[in-house]
Amino acid sequence: MKHRHSAAIRPREGALPAQTQKINLGQLNSHLGYFLRRLQICVFQDFIATLKTMKLRPAQYSVLLVIEANPGKSQAVIGQNLGIERARLARLLHVLERRKWIRRQRSDGRSHALLLTREGAAALAKIKKLAEKHEARIAEQVGHKRRMQLMDMLREFG
Amino acid sequence: MKHRHSAAIRPREGALPAQTQKINLGQLNSHLGYFLRRLQICVFQDFIATLKTMKLRPAQYSVLLVIEANPGKSQAVIGQNLGIERARLARLLHVLERRKWIRRQRSDGRSHALLLTREGAAALAKIKKLAEKHEARIAEQVGHKRRMQLMDMLREFG
Repeated sequence: MKHRHSAAIRPREGALPAQTQKINLGQLNSHLGYFLRRLQICVFQDFIATLKTMKLRPAQYSVLLVIEANPGKSQAVIGQNLGIERARLARLLHVLERRKWIRRQRSDGRSHALLLTREGAAALAKIKKLAEKHEARIAEQVGHKRRMQLMDMLREFG
Repeated sequence: MKHRHSAAIRPREGALPAQTQKINLGQLNSHLGYFLRRLQICVFQDFIATLKTMKLRPAQYSVLLVIEANPGKSQAVIGQNLGIERARLARLLHVLERRKWIRRQRSDGRSHALLLTREGAAALAKIKKLAEKHEARIAEQVGHKRRMQLMDMLREFG
Protein backbone atom coordinates (compact mmCIF):
# COMPACT_ATOMS: atom_id res chain seq x y z
CA MET A 1 0.00 0.00 0.00
CA LYS A 2 1.57 3.19 -1.18
CA HIS A 3 1.22 6.26 0.92
CA ARG A 4 3.23 9.35 1.62
CA HIS A 5 4.02 10.76 5.01
CA SER A 6 3.79 14.35 6.09
CA ALA A 7 3.25 16.27 9.28
CA ALA A 8 -0.14 15.07 10.45
CA ILE A 9 -0.29 11.32 10.00
CA ARG A 10 2.54 8.93 9.63
CA PRO A 11 3.76 5.61 10.87
CA ARG A 12 4.99 5.45 14.45
CA GLU A 13 8.65 5.68 13.53
CA GLY A 14 8.03 8.98 11.84
CA ALA A 15 5.65 10.37 14.44
CA LEU A 16 8.26 10.19 17.18
CA PRO A 17 11.01 12.76 17.43
CA ALA A 18 14.14 11.12 16.06
CA GLN A 19 15.82 10.92 19.45
CA THR A 20 12.88 9.24 21.17
CA GLN A 21 13.34 5.71 22.43
CA LYS A 22 10.73 3.34 21.19
CA ILE A 23 9.12 1.19 23.82
CA ASN A 24 7.25 -2.07 23.90
CA LEU A 25 3.49 -1.52 23.78
CA GLY A 26 2.92 -4.80 25.61
CA GLN A 27 -0.67 -5.93 25.61
CA LEU A 28 -1.83 -2.69 23.99
CA ASN A 29 -0.84 -4.41 20.76
CA SER A 30 -3.90 -6.60 21.05
CA HIS A 31 -6.43 -3.79 21.43
CA LEU A 32 -8.31 -2.52 18.41
CA GLY A 33 -9.50 0.47 20.45
CA TYR A 34 -5.97 1.73 20.97
CA PHE A 35 -5.17 1.81 17.25
CA LEU A 36 -8.55 3.26 16.33
CA ARG A 37 -8.00 6.03 18.83
CA ARG A 38 -4.50 6.87 17.62
CA LEU A 39 -5.58 7.34 14.02
CA GLN A 40 -8.80 9.10 15.01
CA ILE A 41 -6.82 11.66 17.03
CA CYS A 42 -4.44 12.29 14.11
CA VAL A 43 -7.34 12.79 11.72
CA PHE A 44 -9.19 15.12 14.11
CA GLN A 45 -6.04 17.16 14.74
CA ASP A 46 -5.64 17.65 11.02
CA PHE A 47 -9.30 18.62 10.70
CA ILE A 48 -9.08 21.17 13.51
CA ALA A 49 -5.88 22.66 12.12
CA THR A 50 -7.28 22.87 8.59
CA LEU A 51 -10.52 24.47 9.80
CA LYS A 52 -8.70 26.80 12.17
CA THR A 53 -9.87 29.98 10.51
CA MET A 54 -13.48 28.84 10.93
CA LYS A 55 -13.01 27.72 14.56
CA LEU A 56 -14.96 24.55 14.08
CA ARG A 57 -14.94 21.24 15.90
CA PRO A 58 -15.60 18.00 14.02
CA ALA A 59 -18.90 17.40 15.84
CA GLN A 60 -20.14 20.89 14.94
CA TYR A 61 -19.26 20.20 11.33
CA SER A 62 -21.18 16.90 11.41
CA VAL A 63 -24.26 18.64 12.74
CA LEU A 64 -24.11 21.39 10.12
CA LEU A 65 -23.81 18.81 7.35
CA VAL A 66 -26.80 16.77 8.47
CA ILE A 67 -28.93 19.87 9.01
CA GLU A 68 -28.06 20.91 5.47
CA ALA A 69 -28.87 17.45 4.10
CA ASN A 70 -32.09 17.14 6.17
CA PRO A 71 -33.59 20.60 6.64
CA GLY A 72 -36.31 20.77 9.27
CA LYS A 73 -35.45 17.48 10.95
CA SER A 74 -35.77 17.38 14.70
CA GLN A 75 -32.97 17.79 17.19
CA ALA A 76 -33.81 14.37 18.61
CA VAL A 77 -33.54 12.56 15.29
CA ILE A 78 -30.27 14.28 14.42
CA GLY A 79 -28.78 13.47 17.82
CA GLN A 80 -29.78 9.82 17.54
CA ASN A 81 -28.37 9.43 14.07
CA LEU A 82 -25.05 11.04 14.95
CA GLY A 83 -24.81 9.36 18.34
CA ILE A 84 -24.58 12.68 20.20
CA GLU A 85 -26.12 12.79 23.65
CA ARG A 86 -29.03 15.12 24.19
CA ALA A 87 -27.28 17.56 26.56
CA ARG A 88 -24.13 17.72 24.49
CA LEU A 89 -26.12 18.35 21.33
CA ALA A 90 -28.06 21.12 23.05
CA ARG A 91 -24.80 22.88 24.00
CA LEU A 92 -23.40 22.40 20.52
CA LEU A 93 -26.54 23.80 18.87
CA HIS A 94 -26.46 26.75 21.23
CA VAL A 95 -22.97 27.62 19.95
CA LEU A 96 -24.11 27.34 16.33
CA GLU A 97 -27.15 29.49 17.09
CA ARG A 98 -25.00 32.17 18.70
CA ARG A 99 -22.96 32.26 15.51
CA LYS A 100 -26.29 32.71 13.67
CA TRP A 101 -25.59 29.67 11.51
CA ILE A 102 -28.68 27.69 12.47
CA ARG A 103 -32.10 28.32 13.88
CA ARG A 104 -34.35 26.11 15.93
CA GLN A 105 -38.01 26.14 15.19
CA ARG A 106 -40.34 24.65 17.78
CA SER A 107 -42.28 22.09 15.81
CA ASP A 108 -44.41 19.61 17.74
CA GLY A 109 -44.03 20.82 21.30
CA ARG A 110 -41.52 18.09 22.09
CA SER A 111 -38.64 18.78 19.79
CA HIS A 112 -37.08 21.46 17.62
CA ALA A 113 -36.80 21.47 13.87
CA LEU A 114 -33.35 22.58 12.77
CA LEU A 115 -32.55 24.76 9.82
CA LEU A 116 -29.47 26.48 8.45
CA THR A 117 -29.73 30.24 8.19
CA ARG A 118 -28.58 31.99 5.04
CA GLU A 119 -25.43 32.97 6.95
CA GLY A 120 -24.98 29.35 8.01
CA ALA A 121 -25.29 28.11 4.45
CA ALA A 122 -22.64 30.60 3.33
CA ALA A 123 -20.31 29.61 6.17
CA LEU A 124 -20.85 25.93 5.43
CA ALA A 125 -19.88 26.45 1.79
CA LYS A 126 -16.51 27.80 2.95
CA ILE A 127 -16.18 25.09 5.57
CA LYS A 128 -16.79 22.33 3.05
CA LYS A 129 -13.98 23.61 0.85
CA LEU A 130 -11.58 23.41 3.77
CA ALA A 131 -12.93 20.01 4.82
CA GLU A 132 -12.26 18.72 1.31
CA LYS A 133 -8.65 19.83 1.60
CA HIS A 134 -8.42 18.04 4.93
CA GLU A 135 -9.87 14.85 3.48
CA ALA A 136 -7.56 14.99 0.46
CA ARG A 137 -4.57 15.24 2.79
CA ILE A 138 -5.84 12.29 4.85
CA ALA A 139 -6.26 10.25 1.66
CA GLU A 140 -2.73 11.06 0.65
CA GLN A 141 -1.27 10.25 4.03
CA VAL A 142 -3.27 7.12 4.79
CA GLY A 143 -3.11 5.99 1.19
CA HIS A 144 -6.08 6.27 -1.16
CA LYS A 145 -6.70 2.55 -1.34
CA ARG A 146 -6.34 2.03 2.39
CA ARG A 147 -8.64 4.97 3.11
CA MET A 148 -11.35 3.37 0.96
CA GLN A 149 -10.86 0.00 2.60
CA LEU A 150 -11.10 1.54 6.06
CA MET A 151 -14.24 3.47 5.12
CA ASP A 152 -15.86 0.30 3.80
CA MET A 153 -15.08 -1.61 6.98
CA LEU A 154 -16.04 1.19 9.36
CA ARG A 155 -19.11 2.51 7.59
CA GLU A 156 -21.33 -0.24 8.86
CA PHE A 157 -20.82 1.00 12.42
CA GLY A 158 -21.25 4.70 11.63
CA MET B 1 -17.92 -10.93 6.88
CA LYS B 2 -19.76 -12.69 9.65
CA HIS B 3 -20.37 -10.87 12.88
CA ARG B 4 -22.99 -10.87 15.56
CA HIS B 5 -24.63 -7.84 17.04
CA SER B 6 -25.24 -7.06 20.65
CA ALA B 7 -25.69 -4.00 22.79
CA ALA B 8 -22.37 -2.25 22.32
CA ILE B 9 -21.50 -2.33 18.64
CA ARG B 10 -23.72 -2.95 15.71
CA PRO B 11 -24.49 -1.60 12.31
CA ARG B 12 -26.37 1.68 12.16
CA GLU B 13 -29.73 0.10 11.58
CA GLY B 14 -29.41 -1.82 14.81
CA ALA B 15 -27.87 0.99 16.81
CA LEU B 16 -30.88 3.22 16.36
CA PRO B 17 -34.04 2.72 18.37
CA ALA B 18 -36.54 1.00 16.08
CA GLN B 19 -38.78 4.06 15.79
CA THR B 20 -35.96 6.42 14.84
CA GLN B 21 -36.04 7.96 11.39
CA LYS B 22 -32.85 7.48 9.48
CA ILE B 23 -31.44 10.57 7.88
CA ASN B 24 -29.07 11.33 5.07
CA LEU B 25 -25.50 11.83 6.33
CA GLY B 26 -24.74 14.07 3.38
CA GLN B 27 -21.07 14.85 2.97
CA LEU B 28 -20.22 13.12 6.24
CA ASN B 29 -20.23 9.97 4.13
CA SER B 30 -16.96 11.04 2.61
CA HIS B 31 -15.08 11.56 5.88
CA LEU B 32 -12.90 8.81 7.27
CA GLY B 33 -12.68 10.68 10.58
CA TYR B 34 -16.41 10.42 11.17
CA PHE B 35 -16.47 6.64 10.81
CA LEU B 36 -13.28 6.18 12.82
CA ARG B 37 -14.79 8.23 15.62
CA ARG B 38 -18.10 6.34 15.66
CA LEU B 39 -16.44 2.95 16.06
CA GLN B 40 -13.85 4.31 18.49
CA ILE B 41 -16.59 5.65 20.75
CA CYS B 42 -18.42 2.31 20.68
CA VAL B 43 -15.25 0.43 21.56
CA PHE B 44 -14.34 2.83 24.38
CA GLN B 45 -17.87 2.67 25.80
CA ASP B 46 -17.62 -1.10 25.93
CA PHE B 47 -14.20 -0.86 27.58
CA ILE B 48 -15.41 1.57 30.23
CA ALA B 49 -18.51 -0.52 30.96
CA THR B 50 -16.50 -3.75 31.17
CA LEU B 51 -13.89 -2.17 33.47
CA LYS B 52 -16.53 -0.44 35.54
CA THR B 53 -15.64 -2.20 38.78
CA MET B 54 -12.03 -1.02 38.39
CA LYS B 55 -12.99 2.56 37.47
CA LEU B 56 -10.45 2.79 34.71
CA ARG B 57 -10.26 4.94 31.61
CA PRO B 58 -8.67 3.56 28.43
CA ALA B 59 -5.73 6.00 28.62
CA GLN B 60 -4.99 4.94 32.22
CA TYR B 61 -5.00 1.34 31.11
CA SER B 62 -2.58 2.12 28.26
CA VAL B 63 -0.18 3.78 30.65
CA LEU B 64 -0.31 0.89 33.13
CA LEU B 65 0.40 -1.60 30.33
CA VAL B 66 3.42 0.26 29.02
CA ILE B 67 4.83 0.83 32.50
CA GLU B 68 4.49 -2.90 33.10
CA ALA B 69 6.17 -3.72 29.77
CA ASN B 70 8.91 -1.09 30.24
CA PRO B 71 9.64 -0.75 33.97
CA GLY B 72 11.74 2.27 34.86
CA LYS B 73 11.16 4.13 31.59
CA SER B 74 10.76 7.87 31.84
CA GLN B 75 7.51 9.76 31.89
CA ALA B 76 8.66 11.68 28.81
CA VAL B 77 9.35 8.57 26.74
CA ILE B 78 6.06 6.95 27.71
CA GLY B 79 4.12 10.10 26.89
CA GLN B 80 5.79 10.42 23.49
CA ASN B 81 5.17 6.81 22.56
CA LEU B 82 1.51 6.91 23.55
CA GLY B 83 0.92 10.38 22.11
CA ILE B 84 -0.25 11.78 25.45
CA GLU B 85 0.52 15.43 26.12
CA ARG B 86 2.81 16.22 29.01
CA ALA B 87 0.23 17.96 31.24
CA ARG B 88 -2.42 15.36 30.62
CA LEU B 89 -0.01 12.55 31.39
CA ALA B 90 1.03 14.28 34.62
CA ARG B 91 -2.61 14.42 35.77
CA LEU B 92 -3.20 10.82 34.75
CA LEU B 93 -0.11 9.61 36.62
CA HIS B 94 -1.18 11.58 39.65
CA VAL B 95 -4.43 9.62 39.74
CA LEU B 96 -2.59 6.30 39.40
CA GLU B 97 -0.19 7.35 42.16
CA ARG B 98 -3.04 8.24 44.49
CA ARG B 99 -4.40 4.75 43.94
CA LYS B 100 -0.92 3.50 44.91
CA TRP B 101 -0.63 1.61 41.61
CA ILE B 102 2.50 3.32 40.35
CA ARG B 103 5.43 5.20 41.76
CA ARG B 104 7.58 7.86 40.19
CA GLN B 105 11.26 7.78 40.88
CA ARG B 106 13.26 10.89 40.08
CA SER B 107 15.96 9.58 37.79
CA ASP B 108 18.09 12.11 35.95
CA GLY B 109 16.81 15.38 37.33
CA ARG B 110 14.73 16.04 34.24
CA SER B 111 12.28 13.21 34.17
CA HIS B 112 10.72 10.52 36.32
CA ALA B 113 11.19 6.79 35.98
CA LEU B 114 7.86 4.99 36.31
CA LEU B 115 7.29 1.71 38.07
CA LEU B 116 4.27 -0.37 39.03
CA THR B 117 3.90 -0.98 42.75
CA ARG B 118 3.10 -4.46 44.00
CA GLU B 119 -0.47 -3.26 44.47
CA GLY B 120 -0.47 -1.90 40.93
CA ALA B 121 0.74 -5.19 39.51
CA ALA B 122 -2.03 -7.03 41.34
CA ALA B 123 -4.66 -4.56 40.14
CA LEU B 124 -3.35 -4.78 36.58
CA ALA B 125 -3.65 -8.57 36.62
CA LYS B 126 -7.37 -8.18 37.39
CA ILE B 127 -7.73 -5.38 34.87
CA LYS B 128 -6.15 -7.43 32.10
CA LYS B 129 -8.65 -10.23 32.63
CA LEU B 130 -11.51 -7.76 32.19
CA ALA B 131 -9.80 -6.13 29.21
CA GLU B 132 -9.53 -9.53 27.55
CA LYS B 133 -13.27 -10.01 27.96
CA HIS B 134 -13.82 -6.60 26.41
CA GLU B 135 -11.57 -7.42 23.47
CA ALA B 136 -13.25 -10.79 22.93
CA ARG B 137 -16.62 -9.06 22.75
CA ILE B 138 -15.29 -6.51 20.27
CA ALA B 139 -13.90 -9.33 18.13
CA GLU B 140 -17.26 -11.04 18.17
CA GLN B 141 -19.18 -7.91 17.32
CA VAL B 142 -16.84 -6.47 14.71
CA GLY B 143 -16.08 -9.91 13.31
CA HIS B 144 -12.80 -11.71 14.01
CA LYS B 145 -11.53 -11.37 10.49
CA ARG B 146 -12.50 -7.73 10.15
CA ARG B 147 -10.94 -6.94 13.54
CA MET B 148 -7.61 -8.38 12.34
CA GLN B 149 -7.82 -6.49 9.06
CA LEU B 150 -8.53 -3.24 10.87
CA MET B 151 -5.66 -3.80 13.31
CA ASP B 152 -3.28 -4.46 10.43
CA MET B 153 -4.32 -1.29 8.64
CA LEU B 154 -4.34 0.91 11.72
CA ARG B 155 -1.26 -0.40 13.49
CA GLU B 156 1.13 1.54 11.33
CA PHE B 157 -0.30 4.80 12.71
CA GLY B 158 -0.38 3.68 16.36
